[in-house]
Amino acid sequence: MKNKPCILHKRVFIISSASVVGKKEKSGPLGHLFDLGGDDRFGKNSWEKAEAEMQRLSLGIALNKCGLKDENIDAMFAGDLINQCISSSYGLSNYKIPFLGLFGACSTCAEGMLMSAIYTSLVFDRCAAITSSHYCAAERQFRYPLEYGGQRPPTAQWTVTGSASFIISSLPRDIRRCSAEYIPEIVDVMPGCIVDKGLNDANNMGAAMAPSAADTLERYFSSGISPDDFDMIITGDLGYEGTGILEDLLLSKNIDITKNHVDCGNMIYDESSDTHAGGSGCGCSAVVMSADILENIKTGTVRNILFLGTGALMNTMSINQKQTIPGIAHLVHIKAAKKSDIIIDDMEEK
Amino acid sequence: MKNKPCILHKRVFIISSASVVGKKEKSGPLGHLFDLGGDDRFGKNSWEKAEAEMQRLSLGIALNKCGLKDENIDAMFAGDLINQCISSSYGLSNYKIPFLGLFGACSTCAEGMLMSAIYTSLVFDRCAAITSSHYCAAERQFRYPLEYGGQRPPTAQWTVTGSASFIISSLPRDIRRCSAEYIPEIVDVMPGCIVDKGLNDANNMGAAMAPSAADTLERYFSSGISPDDFDMIITGDLGYEGTGILEDLLLSKNIDITKNHVDCGNMIYDESSDTHAGGSGCGCSAVVMSADILENIKTGTVRNILFLGTGALMNTMSINQKQTIPGIAHLVHIKAAKKSDIIIDDMEEK
Repeated sequence: MKNKPCILHKRVFIISSASVVGKKEKSGPLGHLFDLGGDDRFGKNSWEKAEAEMQRLSLGIALNKCGLKDENIDAMFAGDLINQCISSSYGLSNYKIPFLGLFGACSTCAEGMLMSAIYTSLVFDRCAAITSSHYCAAERQFRYPLEYGGQRPPTAQWTVTGSASFIISSLPRDIRRCSAEYIPEIVDVMPGCIVDKGLNDANNMGAAMAPSAADTLERYFSSGISPDDFDMIITGDLGYEGTGILEDLLLSKNIDITKNHVDCGNMIYDESSDTHAGGSGCGCSAVVMSADILENIKTGTVRNILFLGTGALMNTMSINQKQTIPGIAHLVHIKAAKKSDIIIDDMEEK
Repeated sequence: MKNKPCILHKRVFIISSASVVGKKEKSGPLGHLFDLGGDDRFGKNSWEKAEAEMQRLSLGIALNKCGLKDENIDAMFAGDLINQCISSSYGLSNYKIPFLGLFGACSTCAEGMLMSAIYTSLVFDRCAAITSSHYCAAERQFRYPLEYGGQRPPTAQWTVTGSASFIISSLPRDIRRCSAEYIPEIVDVMPGCIVDKGLNDANNMGAAMAPSAADTLERYFSSGISPDDFDMIITGDLGYEGTGILEDLLLSKNIDITKNHVDCGNMIYDESSDTHAGGSGCGCSAVVMSADILENIKTGTVRNILFLGTGALMNTMSINQKQTIPGIAHLVHIKAAKKSDIIIDDMEEK
């Protein structure tokens, strides 16, 4: 196992992204930033079909933004929380693009970006990473049907209704066409290990995932890189509960991320949303990355970030069988590359 | 989208593999070939835990065979059929190896090999691909609890109880240590597209998956390669029903694979097994590839094959919601590389 980041063999850029969200997310603190949203049904007669439709829409918008079509994309990486990842397979079945299904639970957005970056730096020109989650579909699958009106403990997180898609390219002509001053560049990645610290409270996913995030960050920083090198260290969906645990775990190893750590689960809702410990789900980090963080990179407000998708690798049956909850965290390092500084002709040769 | 195979940038080899199976598979026509098997419980008190244990065992045996440990593997790719792929996360959580979760339904073995080959040819030295399925766990999740004694229609396939692991390496020292005369080399790969032809019979997965297998093979052969170039074209788990449909679909496009096509679902059981349309599940193609096909490659009996993992991307809820069944098929091209012909020193430079 390599305890150093995987450096990419070619420069790869996130040339486009799009976010689609539900009603609660649209009326939250980041609501004005999302590309589409405001409704939870998306014209469908089931929550599962609505979630699939969000994936279809977010990929369509992301392709539209960069003027590309199905045939321009060499592979798409997608996954979600629904059993057998059907939101991805049904949502994306109309796109004639080679499909590589992922399961990373809520870390799927980072896993898809990591995969896209590696593939784009080698065998393909352009890849897409897509993920989603839907509060209503997740509640009835993992907990109770909404009609039951189950009570939620204070450590519970709220599954984000949202989908985001990212188009990753290594083609000079794609970079030339980007209009932003800065273009998000994936510079290195690090896949996470499964970490199981024996937590078994299905209503406290933040605590179950925090040790895996700590593990990946510790491995990353062991190569001499410091947390202070980054403008932001962004975790996916640890929420209020997991955020404190992650920061404490790292402090005990003399790694201090408290100055620049933010969590997408803490950003997407505010207190008026009444979501208890914050947002979660594959869609959580995906829509925050697309609508907020990457946009700030494009303006140069943020220049150098670590994005750490966090996932809990359990299901309802494993909880019922008294198993503990393994976590995972995949890391993607993204920089703001000034368009005028990217020597595009050099890229062709590499 | 590229309609040609992805050529790997470095030579990568399957240096080791292992198969673990249940009672029915052990007593079937290939029973004597599997590394471990004969029991369905593997010392555990639930079917799901037994399936996870099979993954743990198969990876352990595969590592043992080539004298490697956790720390020698840079990443593992794994997935299975159980909701949220828990057989992989629980089965592999004790291995300190970066974990990239996949969901490809029954195509997972091919998807994992494809991923391992691409990663090993670029960013990593050695990867592992692991998958599994368990008849009893799958039956109660997808159909009925065993105790119910549900009747199975003639087109139904039997989920294989089995797990296999594959170690893929690009390191010259690993090749040197291989004792076989021939070493299975992954020469190119092609990820499949989601294909949905409107089939909706959950008891006829072969028919649902055949069009996706036809689609991938048609794309592969469109680059001028002929089915006759291969000793065998091996599909994962189309069974008796899907095999005929695939061959007919391709014949209608003037592609004739009937002379060298075999299906792992037709190989793992015989008539006395009473499994109706044949075997299926992630474990089906995985254990047949590990125990039979790759061993024949190592002796040079088989020299050049296409392995096509086939998967149905549905779940029980999508069937209940009257959705059709999308299929997918990923392709891996494997050759027998004569050890004495592999110019090992050349590998170092590439």
